[in-house]
Amino acid sequence: MFADSYSSKLLENAAAEIAKLPGIGNKTALRLALHLLKKSEDEVRALSNALTKMREEIRYCSSCNNISDNDICEICANTARNQAIICVVESIKDVMAIEKTGQFKGLYHVLGGIISPLDGVGPDDLKLQNLQSKVVAGSVNELILTLSTTMEGDTTNFYLYRKFSPFNITITTPARGLAIGDEIEYADEITLGRSIANRMPFKL
Amino acid sequence: MFADSYSSKLLENAAAEIAKLPGIGNKTALRLALHLLKKSEDEVRALSNALTKMREEIRYCSSCNNISDNDICEICANTARNQAIICVVESIKDVMAIEKTGQFKGLYHVLGGIISPLDGVGPDDLKLQNLQSKVVAGSVNELILTLSTTMEGDTTNFYLYRKFSPFNITITTPARGLAIGDEIEYADEITLGRSIANRMPFKL
Repeated sequence: MFADSYSSKLLENAAAEIAKLPGIGNKTALRLALHLLKKSEDEVRALSNALTKMREEIRYCSSCNNISDNDICEICANTARNQAIICVVESIKDVMAIEKTGQFKGLYHVLGGIISPLDGVGPDDLKLQNLQSKVVAGSVNELILTLSTTMEGDTTNFYLYRKFSPFNITITTPARGLAIGDEIEYADEITLGRSIANRMPFKL
Repeated sequence: MFADSYSSKLLENAAAEIAKLPGIGNKTALRLALHLLKKSEDEVRALSNALTKMREEIRYCSSCNNISDNDICEICANTARNQAIICVVESIKDVMAIEKTGQFKGLYHVLGGIISPLDGVGPDDLKLQNLQSKVVAGSVNELILTLSTTMEGDTTNFYLYRKFSPFNITITTPARGLAIGDEIEYADEITLGRSIANRMPFKL
């Protein structure tokens, strides 16, 4: 994989480890390794320690499965948030994306996956225990099913809807329609067709 | 720099450290950090250790300044190589590039820089001590000045030529001309002009 021309096994090994990261090829890995060689030992140690520490010490919120430095994540622990509205998402990346919008003040539930028969992921692979307990306990008013608008997302939505609709809660999904900035001419036809079928009152 | 929406300082810190690497922005850093979260502790530790170990244990060849795991690098230690021909380069990256060609069987001398008044790099910033000792001792027959064909490279070439031409050695540079695969129509005019002025006998 690497040429013999490295003249340092240490460099070769470091570059090989960096090249295991997704989207980083051998040339970039070598460039990064050589960059680190020019940095102080303290700087390189700061990077290494941050990675190891994160991997070894990070925890998952025992309430919502979001990543957390504590047993309960900051979002679940925030009493200013509406504990009765739960936004169900696939991964922690989705939590980050929604938090960035600043539009949601309820809690999350991270499924840790999405039903995908092709990938061998079934309903039993989703982390649903805590969510189910909350729903059964009657502490949830609304579930917002915020999964990707894909075949897998739709399948998971359907499964969750069947599972939770017997309870006395509202089940919603984010509005679907034209994205802000979309040009009609270039909108995909399914989105455009549905957005016309589901048209809403015009507001000034 | 990062949103509050991380819900983990450990993740935030890891992403911030990764984002210090050249060419890696905040989004990529976050993606890489999340990728590492999914890897085993052993895999993350392997990466961290490789980086720290490389930085702390790597050495520079006491003969040619190339990186090395030992006091003398593999190239200098290889008695099958011609010790009397020295290829003078700017950095260890150049050594790697030339080694890859498999066309050079002499030794190297890594200057660790190139004369660049604009960047505040003068002749005294080049690592020349060992090379000078070798030349003075009479153990060098030829110096191949293999620096970039830029203003800075030319300046450094000129400096080295002045310094070493009083000794009884041959001083050369790699051939300049059209690159293999160049189309005449698109060759830059300086290269094309010089390549015609310095034309060479046609060989079948």
